[in-house]
Amino acid sequence: MAALTTSQKKEADRQMNLYCEGAAEVIPPEDLRRKVEQSLAEDRPLRIKLGLDPSAPDVHVGHTVVLQKLRQFQENGHHVQLLIGDFTGRIGDPTGKSTARAPLTAEEVERNALTYTKQFSHVLDMDKVTVHYNSSWLASLSFEEVIHLAGQITTARLLERDDFDERTALGKPIGLHEFFYPVMQGYDSVVLKSDIEIGGTDQHYNTLMGRHFQDRFGKEKQAVILMPLLEGLDGKEKMSKSKNNYVGIEENPDDMFGKTMSVPDELMGRWFRLVSGLSPERVDTIEAQLNSGALHPREGKRLLATRMTELYHGGEAAAKAAERFDALYRHNQLPEEMPEHRTQAASVSPLDLLVESGLLASKSEARRMIANRGVKVDGVRLETADEDLLVHDGMILQVGKRKHVRLRSSH
Amino acid sequence: MAALTTSQKKEADRQMNLYCEGAAEVIPPEDLRRKVEQSLAEDRPLRIKLGLDPSAPDVHVGHTVVLQKLRQFQENGHHVQLLIGDFTGRIGDPTGKSTARAPLTAEEVERNALTYTKQFSHVLDMDKVTVHYNSSWLASLSFEEVIHLAGQITTARLLERDDFDERTALGKPIGLHEFFYPVMQGYDSVVLKSDIEIGGTDQHYNTLMGRHFQDRFGKEKQAVILMPLLEGLDGKEKMSKSKNNYVGIEENPDDMFGKTMSVPDELMGRWFRLVSGLSPERVDTIEAQLNSGALHPREGKRLLATRMTELYHGGEAAAKAAERFDALYRHNQLPEEMPEHRTQAASVSPLDLLVESGLLASKSEARRMIANRGVKVDGVRLETADEDLLVHDGMILQVGKRKHVRLRSSH
Repeated sequence: MAALTTSQKKEADRQMNLYCEGAAEVIPPEDLRRKVEQSLAEDRPLRIKLGLDPSAPDVHVGHTVVLQKLRQFQENGHHVQLLIGDFTGRIGDPTGKSTARAPLTAEEVERNALTYTKQFSHVLDMDKVTVHYNSSWLASLSFEEVIHLAGQITTARLLERDDFDERTALGKPIGLHEFFYPVMQGYDSVVLKSDIEIGGTDQHYNTLMGRHFQDRFGKEKQAVILMPLLEGLDGKEKMSKSKNNYVGIEENPDDMFGKTMSVPDELMGRWFRLVSGLSPERVDTIEAQLNSGALHPREGKRLLATRMTELYHGGEAAAKAAERFDALYRHNQLPEEMPEHRTQAASVSPLDLLVESGLLASKSEARRMIANRGVKVDGVRLETADEDLLVHDGMILQVGKRKHVRLRSSH
Repeated sequence: MAALTTSQKKEADRQMNLYCEGAAEVIPPEDLRRKVEQSLAEDRPLRIKLGLDPSAPDVHVGHTVVLQKLRQFQENGHHVQLLIGDFTGRIGDPTGKSTARAPLTAEEVERNALTYTKQFSHVLDMDKVTVHYNSSWLASLSFEEVIHLAGQITTARLLERDDFDERTALGKPIGLHEFFYPVMQGYDSVVLKSDIEIGGTDQHYNTLMGRHFQDRFGKEKQAVILMPLLEGLDGKEKMSKSKNNYVGIEENPDDMFGKTMSVPDELMGRWFRLVSGLSPERVDTIEAQLNSGALHPREGKRLLATRMTELYHGGEAAAKAAERFDALYRHNQLPEEMPEHRTQAASVSPLDLLVESGLLASKSEARRMIANRGVKVDGVRLETADEDLLVHDGMILQVGKRKHVRLRSSH
């Protein structure tokens, strides 16, 4: 590699700072540095890999932590490779035990991939992204080639994976086929010639497989950037659809604004840093203002909610969502403080909820009040008593003008 | 299955006794019994599988333990399937570490298989044997099919294999590809629809894989007959080419006769039972005579040596070999008892040997004696002092008429 000029060295420093920003782990930093320097010396874009599960294409804000990192690379001229792990999805559960893991058809995979790319286009310039399906090289491997691949790794190394290790300790069976999932992920990096792989911290083991197999195949090892897993709106668990603590990136502006307003104060900084798409310098300033008290937490939250809504719906929609939110909370004369009611239910009859929360004395009274159009949920009139409500944390239940309860939920 | 007639039941008893004769283990006897009964009830031959390694085609008497067992099945109308494990051989060592395990070419596999069948024809009627190459179904498996196969077994079950277990305990690496060798052997039984698999006791784990995979594929499980491993001429270690304690079945009549005469007395009964091809009843009689003293061990050994030579070279050749053996030991006036000399060398200079064994005082004397045509090895005049001798246990070194030494070797 040619020696870098002084300005190239500065540029390498700048990119390193940017890429390491917010990362939980960089494995190892010297490899990332070398890749960046090579890119500058040879004037060639780096190949940045992100692996995707083709079976769950609903993208939420938690997923955008890695997407925002990819965007930084893209904005600096590097090339993003999305890897759809469709080969595993096509196989389903080979033991035939799990009906939940029925094989995906080629059409389903294709549809899910389109769903991804449509959603990702909010963050990435999809014209400059290539999408790869690992079935296109894995499906055609012969048994002999599979054996050759398997010869590049030991069973002890595979058993080190956290969940394998735990299952071994608990005496829970591991099917031999399961050993191939990390092998495939590693081999994908060989085929894609990835320079860098991005993933959540839960992908630590799998992304290292890429380094292992590239090395075994005589290639230079990819660097790995692991990003933190964003907590959900409950402030505790990782954001996920199954925990119902997420903000989908295709949710309407009002939901996106309102849900973001319910992010716990102590997580605000993380959201700004990991998913707002604002520059590190701007995030530093906001954090400093929050810490000094120059920015009130509620104003900070409003800034965050506006920014998040703007990212996915544009500035105008964000402004309108903010107005409607204000209308709901201010013009609707919601008190700053109100009683809270804790519930574990994900969905519940409004009659039960009105009685349990202490707003009304009996179900018959609750039914009458709903029929009289006197009950609102998040500022919207409840039209029927006969459909269960989907509960979210921070949801506001209102009877008449003056009685309110804020629901607290952590399901 | 239709109920058996009384005579069919008797026949099933007879076959069961025959097949269990000499076996180290039958897994499980009730499955073997059921297979035999099915065969009688449905008038259909059973499929008897023997797996063979395509890389070491030199057949010795140790291998004939299982061949003699196969012959019993063949003589009762059942069908022998030889399975050449050429797929593994074709792969070689996929890690590229072992040059010793270079891949076999298709031609080498074919040549080795022919060598097998030629040698096996001394024991089996090869016109009634089918030869299968597992590459013909394994090579064409897709990765998806391999994953499906792998899904039928747990890694814990694979790690139970003795050598894996030992290597795990010692921290020695196991390549993931190695997990596939037992998987392949098991799947071979599925494809071959084996009713019974025959193997040495060292094949315990692998033959059980056949039962496991047949069961997972919804087939009836094969019964397994494990035969003891025959000790070599040293009376200690398993007979093998690498230990140089073997009798090859293509050795010439004199070597076969002479080597068999060197079988330790205490193993004579095992040889009669496992590799002589004599009926169990006949072997019972000989053993009783040996035990009662009606048959002298040396006469018993002579009977065994004649029988073994007859098996592979016919009665006439056996009789002549016996005569020549007598000529060497009797007409050559070899004493019954003679000094013994123990050596560890596999090959050695005759000069060194003549001095070490105490027959002659110096190498120069030894060289002179050889030049004067006064040295014999196993009754044959030694023509040169300049070529190393291949040592075997029981080899007789003779100087002049009266000086003898019997070599004892355990390399």
